[in-house]
Amino acid sequence: MPSSTALLTDRYELTMLEAALASGTSQRECIFEVFARRLPDGRRYGVLAGTGRLLDLIERFRFDDRELDWLRSNTVVTGAALDWLADFRFSGSIWGYREGEVYFPNSPVLIVEAPFAEAVLLETLALSVINYDSAVASAAARMVSVSRGRPLAEMGSRRTSEDAAVAAARAAFIAGFDATSNLEAGRQWGIPTMGTAAHAFTLLHDTEEDAFRAQVAALGPGTTLLVDTYDIPEAVELAVEVAGTGLGAVRIDSGDLPVLVQQVRAQLDALGATGTKITVTNDLDEFAVAALAASPVDSYGVGTSLVTGSGAPTAGMVYKLVARRDDAGDWISVAKRSAAKATVGGRKTAVRRLTARGTALEEVVSVDTTAHGEFAPGAEVAGARPLLVPLIVEGVIVDRYRGPEGTLLAREHRESAISELPVEAFRLGRGEPVIPTVYR
Amino acid sequence: MPSSTALLTDRYELTMLEAALASGTSQRECIFEVFARRLPDGRRYGVLAGTGRLLDLIERFRFDDRELDWLRSNTVVTGAALDWLADFRFSGSIWGYREGEVYFPNSPVLIVEAPFAEAVLLETLALSVINYDSAVASAAARMVSVSRGRPLAEMGSRRTSEDAAVAAARAAFIAGFDATSNLEAGRQWGIPTMGTAAHAFTLLHDTEEDAFRAQVAALGPGTTLLVDTYDIPEAVELAVEVAGTGLGAVRIDSGDLPVLVQQVRAQLDALGATGTKITVTNDLDEFAVAALAASPVDSYGVGTSLVTGSGAPTAGMVYKLVARRDDAGDWISVAKRSAAKATVGGRKTAVRRLTARGTALEEVVSVDTTAHGEFAPGAEVAGARPLLVPLIVEGVIVDRYRGPEGTLLAREHRESAISELPVEAFRLGRGEPVIPTVYR
Repeated sequence: MPSSTALLTDRYELTMLEAALASGTSQRECIFEVFARRLPDGRRYGVLAGTGRLLDLIERFRFDDRELDWLRSNTVVTGAALDWLADFRFSGSIWGYREGEVYFPNSPVLIVEAPFAEAVLLETLALSVINYDSAVASAAARMVSVSRGRPLAEMGSRRTSEDAAVAAARAAFIAGFDATSNLEAGRQWGIPTMGTAAHAFTLLHDTEEDAFRAQVAALGPGTTLLVDTYDIPEAVELAVEVAGTGLGAVRIDSGDLPVLVQQVRAQLDALGATGTKITVTNDLDEFAVAALAASPVDSYGVGTSLVTGSGAPTAGMVYKLVARRDDAGDWISVAKRSAAKATVGGRKTAVRRLTARGTALEEVVSVDTTAHGEFAPGAEVAGARPLLVPLIVEGVIVDRYRGPEGTLLAREHRESAISELPVEAFRLGRGEPVIPTVYR
Repeated sequence: MPSSTALLTDRYELTMLEAALASGTSQRECIFEVFARRLPDGRRYGVLAGTGRLLDLIERFRFDDRELDWLRSNTVVTGAALDWLADFRFSGSIWGYREGEVYFPNSPVLIVEAPFAEAVLLETLALSVINYDSAVASAAARMVSVSRGRPLAEMGSRRTSEDAAVAAARAAFIAGFDATSNLEAGRQWGIPTMGTAAHAFTLLHDTEEDAFRAQVAALGPGTTLLVDTYDIPEAVELAVEVAGTGLGAVRIDSGDLPVLVQQVRAQLDALGATGTKITVTNDLDEFAVAALAASPVDSYGVGTSLVTGSGAPTAGMVYKLVARRDDAGDWISVAKRSAAKATVGGRKTAVRRLTARGTALEEVVSVDTTAHGEFAPGAEVAGARPLLVPLIVEGVIVDRYRGPEGTLLAREHRESAISELPVEAFRLGRGEPVIPTVYR
């Protein structure tokens, strides 16, 4: 049994629970909404990720004896609240954009409907997961869009926290990366893993030739040999000598890539290794990938810039109460009033309006401040694709979005959703969101 | 028993192991070094964090049946390598800068000495932990240095991955933050937790007064009331009316803080609530904290910019083989030769040279390319403070650096190490590292 996720939570969620239990408001039905007020500076669209992981983490959001003992002994909350937490199981419903969906400012990517006491507890966990995973997926999608179909591998585990690395690998895969270096991401999420050798392996041996021979003996001639430990032309020659013209690939991890790649391709071809591929891994980001479009690169490995969201390490989403019932059972739209952080109150539905040819035109968010009965997300708008699907229905998790299968589904959905975007979405330069978000 | 950390690893570490086992080089004794080639753009110093967490994670770095089965069925490695992994326990030694120590470009913050097969496996885990935690601690230290002794609370869990959030809270505490909103960080690392209520709590109630009364009833008048949901002056007046002049604090989470804080202070004083504190939490970073120096703020809550390293979300450290034994048992210094990423080979020791008054002058890294006998870190340099301490000695972890006690120790050490820095270190503007790193 995996451990509880219940304390991955800001303390104020429990103190609010305690106060609400005391004041008799804890069971008021509420609607909380997750959305981004804006995209990261200059980005044209975002890619939602994390939903599938979040479902697992909500399932494990239980206050067992270990959690309750700690809360009690640290007087975080007391008596009635502890009893309530001991019995806590999320019994509400959650709708959301499908994982892999693109999103824009104010897209209601997650909608949590539950009594206040339940919904308030999920704020930190939901935001942690969605904010980080979406930051990575949004950066990754830009890299994918400029890679011209060449495979991309995620290899940034060392540049983000050790568990975040697993989430990053998954988010990158959803956004269209083909593989990851991270073994745990392979195990947990079924993502193909890759990697052969580092400079340390060459330096371990008395000569580069010893190292190449050792690697080819163990991993076969189809392996990827790292050729920039000493002198690249010498290493390329040696690599083909050792592995033969059937050598799988050479990897270049430093230097002036456009020039080097051209030289190495010419050298490999001259040596008869015309099928040997070239992979590059030197501090790449979407701009460096784009700059290599005309170079004979076969695949890319991306690390730091990917796992740190390429300048936008968090998606900046918030979790806001937008509607609640009053004591008479009527729904009330609510919103903070401060100028800079104003929120549109009321329960939302969302659709993406498309042209006849299937190109996205606008994000239509409907605010329904009166009727809150059956939740029929956007079914009523013609020429539009509904964006909200049920993820948890009265406490029961929809299984298809979970696990390796759910991850693969999210990857497919991302491809389909991205394909609807106008071509301007894929310019790397700064701009406005590629379609507007309009309220109806 | 907490789960294994062994697959939080890049695949190439295992393929290198397999190839080295086959070529007979796997047991060559090696020295790997963790260092940053440079500080993040314009920073004057870095703060090392993560060491205490890393020791726990190395203890759990075991290949149990679950890990071995997955590696086997995915043919990551085969026969001999699987047998070797089944028996793996780290038997080597690790030295490092003390957690909380300041560091500069090329400071050897971690030195791993072990047979290649063992040392190579720790690369990803060590870097993930040290890179993220140090990024947060380095940003946090800058915020602490401009806070003029006013308390700082970490509240960024929602803006980083859910487990990274716990690490971030710990790193911020080491760097001088006083508390965190993250409950798991409280449980695991003994960090004081804080937090009372969000806007949702006010919006849940029919009136702001109902909300304030509910909160004060549950948490007492010493609580912190959030006053910017609707109208700040009205809320401040109401807060004092409900809680009395003994109200603990008011929190402002939006708006033009220097102006608002001044107004709220005047209003509180006029209402007789002269002891009521003001805490601010609106998208702060080190620059915003510095800009509030002359305002009557009593404490700060910092989120996004802290957990994302305030523009530098990774410390960018690398894990490099710098020396190994050859078959005759002699130590050989090794280094990659490529221009952009050249490494200084050889085993290092490091001391910080200080003036007679105890101000840091330079980081002295001694490269010892010949003698590699007893490891006596820097004891020989007069007027200097040795920087390396043993963390793991022949497989045995030094316990004093672990757990809540180790975290507290790191916090104290950070305070002492920072106090040695020249005053220019604390300028927020961009500059060079405040002391040079010199090789002897």
